[in-house]
Amino acid sequence: MAGNTFGNVFKVSTFGESHGEGIGVVIDGCPAGLQIDKEFIQQELNRRKPGQSHLTSPRKEADEPEWLSGIFEGITTGAPIAVFIRNTNQQTGDYAHLKDVYRPSHADYTWTEKFGLRDYRGGGRASARETAARVIAGAIAKLFIKQAGIDIYAFVSQVHQVKLNKPYSALNLNLTNNYDVRCPDEETAIKMAAVIEQAKAEGDSVGGVISCMVQGCPPGLGEPVFDKLHAQLAKAMLSINACKGFEIGSGFDGTLMKGSEHNDAFELKDQKLSTRTNHSGGIQGGISNGSDIYFQCAFKPVSTIQKKQDTVTVTGESTTLEAFGRHDPCVVPRAVPIVEAMAALVIADFMLLNRSSKL
Amino acid sequence: MAGNTFGNVFKVSTFGESHGEGIGVVIDGCPAGLQIDKEFIQQELNRRKPGQSHLTSPRKEADEPEWLSGIFEGITTGAPIAVFIRNTNQQTGDYAHLKDVYRPSHADYTWTEKFGLRDYRGGGRASARETAARVIAGAIAKLFIKQAGIDIYAFVSQVHQVKLNKPYSALNLNLTNNYDVRCPDEETAIKMAAVIEQAKAEGDSVGGVISCMVQGCPPGLGEPVFDKLHAQLAKAMLSINACKGFEIGSGFDGTLMKGSEHNDAFELKDQKLSTRTNHSGGIQGGISNGSDIYFQCAFKPVSTIQKKQDTVTVTGESTTLEAFGRHDPCVVPRAVPIVEAMAALVIADFMLLNRSSKL
Amino acid sequence: MAGNTFGNVFKVSTFGESHGEGIGVVIDGCPAGLQIDKEFIQQELNRRKPGQSHLTSPRKEADEPEWLSGIFEGITTGAPIAVFIRNTNQQTGDYAHLKDVYRPSHADYTWTEKFGLRDYRGGGRASARETAARVIAGAIAKLFIKQAGIDIYAFVSQVHQVKLNKPYSALNLNLTNNYDVRCPDEETAIKMAAVIEQAKAEGDSVGGVISCMVQGCPPGLGEPVFDKLHAQLAKAMLSINACKGFEIGSGFDGTLMKGSEHNDAFELKDQKLSTRTNHSGGIQGGISNGSDIYFQCAFKPVSTIQKKQDTVTVTGESTTLEAFGRHDPCVVPRAVPIVEAMAALVIADFMLLNRSSKL
Amino acid sequence: MAGNTFGNVFKVSTFGESHGEGIGVVIDGCPAGLQIDKEFIQQELNRRKPGQSHLTSPRKEADEPEWLSGIFEGITTGAPIAVFIRNTNQQTGDYAHLKDVYRPSHADYTWTEKFGLRDYRGGGRASARETAARVIAGAIAKLFIKQAGIDIYAFVSQVHQVKLNKPYSALNLNLTNNYDVRCPDEETAIKMAAVIEQAKAEGDSVGGVISCMVQGCPPGLGEPVFDKLHAQLAKAMLSINACKGFEIGSGFDGTLMKGSEHNDAFELKDQKLSTRTNHSGGIQGGISNGSDIYFQCAFKPVSTIQKKQDTVTVTGESTTLEAFGRHDPCVVPRAVPIVEAMAALVIADFMLLNRSSKL
Repeated sequence: MAGNTFGNVFKVSTFGESHGEGIGVVIDGCPAGLQIDKEFIQQELNRRKPGQSHLTSPRKEADEPEWLSGIFEGITTGAPIAVFIRNTNQQTGDYAHLKDVYRPSHADYTWTEKFGLRDYRGGGRASARETAARVIAGAIAKLFIKQAGIDIYAFVSQVHQVKLNKPYSALNLNLTNNYDVRCPDEETAIKMAAVIEQAKAEGDSVGGVISCMVQGCPPGLGEPVFDKLHAQLAKAMLSINACKGFEIGSGFDGTLMKGSEHNDAFELKDQKLSTRTNHSGGIQGGISNGSDIYFQCAFKPVSTIQKKQDTVTVTGESTTLEAFGRHDPCVVPRAVPIVEAMAALVIADFMLLNRSSKL
Repeated sequence: MAGNTFGNVFKVSTFGESHGEGIGVVIDGCPAGLQIDKEFIQQELNRRKPGQSHLTSPRKEADEPEWLSGIFEGITTGAPIAVFIRNTNQQTGDYAHLKDVYRPSHADYTWTEKFGLRDYRGGGRASARETAARVIAGAIAKLFIKQAGIDIYAFVSQVHQVKLNKPYSALNLNLTNNYDVRCPDEETAIKMAAVIEQAKAEGDSVGGVISCMVQGCPPGLGEPVFDKLHAQLAKAMLSINACKGFEIGSGFDGTLMKGSEHNDAFELKDQKLSTRTNHSGGIQGGISNGSDIYFQCAFKPVSTIQKKQDTVTVTGESTTLEAFGRHDPCVVPRAVPIVEAMAALVIADFMLLNRSSKL
Repeated sequence: MAGNTFGNVFKVSTFGESHGEGIGVVIDGCPAGLQIDKEFIQQELNRRKPGQSHLTSPRKEADEPEWLSGIFEGITTGAPIAVFIRNTNQQTGDYAHLKDVYRPSHADYTWTEKFGLRDYRGGGRASARETAARVIAGAIAKLFIKQAGIDIYAFVSQVHQVKLNKPYSALNLNLTNNYDVRCPDEETAIKMAAVIEQAKAEGDSVGGVISCMVQGCPPGLGEPVFDKLHAQLAKAMLSINACKGFEIGSGFDGTLMKGSEHNDAFELKDQKLSTRTNHSGGIQGGISNGSDIYFQCAFKPVSTIQKKQDTVTVTGESTTLEAFGRHDPCVVPRAVPIVEAMAALVIADFMLLNRSSKL
Repeated sequence: MAGNTFGNVFKVSTFGESHGEGIGVVIDGCPAGLQIDKEFIQQELNRRKPGQSHLTSPRKEADEPEWLSGIFEGITTGAPIAVFIRNTNQQTGDYAHLKDVYRPSHADYTWTEKFGLRDYRGGGRASARETAARVIAGAIAKLFIKQAGIDIYAFVSQVHQVKLNKPYSALNLNLTNNYDVRCPDEETAIKMAAVIEQAKAEGDSVGGVISCMVQGCPPGLGEPVFDKLHAQLAKAMLSINACKGFEIGSGFDGTLMKGSEHNDAFELKDQKLSTRTNHSGGIQGGISNGSDIYFQCAFKPVSTIQKKQDTVTVTGESTTLEAFGRHDPCVVPRAVPIVEAMAALVIADFMLLNRSSKL
């Protein structure tokens, strides 16, 4: 009943499994009159899809969306927009040996407990393949918020022990896509790629951090008191597979500062209200203040590795799990467009919610 | 339209302002038949209320709930439970000087942008006083989940630079309430209290970290894919005033591990499926696995300080803000019961959602 | 989890019982900036309250609202508006004899089946006293839609066998409140009052029909496909105690017409698109077309009568129920403001929903 | 944002247009473990589809569902069930002449006002073709409630002036499908068919009434106070194209009775609580009482007729609309499975909601 839909007004529902017919999305609440740039949406999908570089899973998926409804002559009609991506590279046989065993740190055991059964083929609905549907919805949200001058820039700021020690304002965020690892700083990007390649060679995996900045967001977005803008962003990010942490603005580091250091003094810049610093990450009292919104997300090392692991069978016997499947040694580069997509959904939704805030 | 209600089935709505008539809550979705222990609820409120120790704001609020509906002969009837706490210690005059100025890092400016006007008295609805209502709802949720053997233990694990360097499993979490600072480790508690007192003396404020552990949670709670258990916990925590970060299990530190280190191998313990480690923090694929759930929340230093600050008036002129009001030098000790309350709401909601997961 | 909240954006939740502390309402989603005319709201409450004429229950309730939140200096702030009406005339002793018996055609048995227990005092939450809360919310909705030039006129068009055989356009709807029975046609009003008085004298009750017309509604309100404007109106009306039927426009009589007679030809009136007839009742394809919206609601004779009735005890024994309590011989006159209130909530909600329909 | 989703727990969202790619549905909230009988679902679709008899539109649609997700090895997994029906018989050219004109009593004008544009091909999303998606969802709901022993029987009880003057209890409801007109009484069915054929010959259309009975529903279903079982049924039915009225139990006729006649006395039957009469239609206080639930729905004559009609162009000029298209002279026979589907969705949803009503 819950869980497959995100958003209040710009409402996105996904469906589908990694090794069933495909993955789909219904976007209900996109205002009528929006021009849909399908080429842009395909580019966004391509940034997420596997097989795009030597750093990612060799699995190939065409990820070609079928547009099922809601668009007439290239324009949204106000009706639900449904899109479907057919699975074309499913090799269900790959997963037969997973029928009877729970993969460590995967959803196999927990979903079985919840539903009493599970689709064991490649994680079924718990697979990150589901995020392709989010990228489509997020791309449409981007087209919508772009009209209000809002842009979103996510990038990899850490891979395992390699950290990008520069603030986002010192980076050229337009370079992010130039590097397979999606870090806009060349020197760091090279180091990160090396770490991922080594993990791949070892049959192991590594995690990392994605930073994200939303530029051009007007003041006033976010809802009191439970649906604060950063609370909804946190939920959005932690709903992404493998994401384990979120911080807005100064985040955990902010706990080391004093109030007198952390407070963002208001000042006038070009006769407009502005803040001298931005420890708040663009959000105060749960609502955007017009500054850049920025946040960070921690991603654990992916659970699928090519090493022998101890585990338990569905009938409760100890066993070991052999190496298997085709997976990413590091999910972080491919998660960049997903972080952006989820951020776009949050912003689009709050923009529409805001239309009812005043008379 | 959004933002004042939390939860899907165990649905909690709060209303009220810090300097209006009072703060209230409506709990809609608590199953009929639950015995309401009003004494326990008062204790929970007392843990949150100001004026309880020298570490907190000297403001005194009785925080005595009026029970307006939903309970008959001490038992929930299935009807909405409404509770109201009247404001008794409001000194609205205190805030008259805030009418025309935006306090730095407060909600004053952003809420004005959103709604076109604001209740400037003590933050109005943006005040942390609203969390008293959450504590009532959370206490009822605790009574509900207690029946399933679930307990929640939050505690302060960091104040400014003082960190508690022990895992929760090495602590006696029943001692937490013995210390004003709400850290169960005496030595650390004393250091933390000293830091807070110093900040108070300086008219400054400090932040910190609250850790929380949920014990006894059955496997199977959480909803795919957007409403993962930790995604909803993240939203719940970041909706608390001053909370700026959340991490589940290994969190940001987990990004420094390899998959082969991070994966929680399944094993049999007393013939029951268990995990050797718990880097997952009790949640896999968004759903509880029966291990302890644990997470951490970062709280920034509170924005209200007794120092002169630069800011801007509502009419767009530079000004300085003098010291004012009665506030906490550190919000973290009083936030402990709020973290527990929000966690209880999340767990209670997912328990009820789960009733529909299978035939 | 469901059932105590109405509306999507202009969201109204009620709480409270007829013989508990009182009845309350939380309105979440009323835009900030609306001036609240408390005198008007009291007038609306007075139209609903018992004891206002010899045609209604002699029970006296002051129905004085306490305003708990969401209004600052007479203006809505965008925060939830909570209002509470304390019960002052409850005579719980009246109901002790109902503890062990199910009143025929009341909610006693069904609510016990649902919740496993019940508040037997005067119907508890199932009592029509709950509608006082709706009237408050509806009055605020009226203030909101009034700004867009929308007015709502409900009136009694049938009491038992006495029918008002005139179309609403032949009536002066401003006269409705001149008559206790709330029928704007004097001759009919007198007959209706006589029927009610006779029923009262017999210790019996009668039902009737309320007609309602919404004037000034702009085209474009309503949502496809499940939340059609008339579908939501139907739900709203049938949620009122004792309401058993709803029809929009031609309704059941329309089934006797042919398409060529029933279709409302479009024509130009003062260069504006209009319809020659209005069998559609102002709604086509679920969305308002700018014509008057009109609908009718059937109310059964109230279940509480002063006659001996056969029934069954909670322990499953046959018994008879004696006359009791203080009740209305006909609920229809007092239901007029409730019908208007629910209609106002529907219209206000769709107006706000419509703000997101286009770019 | 609203309108394309129905239900709280058993949540159904439809998408698609009559002359786009097709019509689809996502069912989110069907419990895991339900066996899906695809043959039964096809039968239900066949009862709704056009071209099934000489009484319906000659348009032919295969209505073959593609199952996109949520089912694994024939069993629901708890994941969203997505189903798509491709349009195969669309003749978009048929509708080119409708681009510039508003059809009387259709959704053309109102949807344009709402969304600023419209898909003019065959009504687009406003077309009754959308109900095919509801029939699929309803069929799955029927499979679910069947497990609890609940059956739903709808039938045609009136076509234009021909009324079936027998209570449902005097009919053999298993015969309904034997007659094209879906009336279980042979004599009446023949008369009804004649009326429809005559309307067809005249290029006109007729309306009618569908009665529906839900058998085997346990007591306790329905939610207070806004989501009463009959309120939700009313909304469900009035959301069906051309439905203009709804009444539960005695409905409008009940307004002619006195309370002493209308009240359903409780009695013991086979030591179980029962009611002597059933004027309540199986629902009291908004909640089922275990008796048969019955209700009636009024359907207007369909708006599409083969006669010249006055109307207005989109640019505001008077014009006449010629005969066109392929349509039903009477929608009522084909609406029978839609009424059943919507009723099944309501019942299934309330059954799941009820799982949280008690401890």
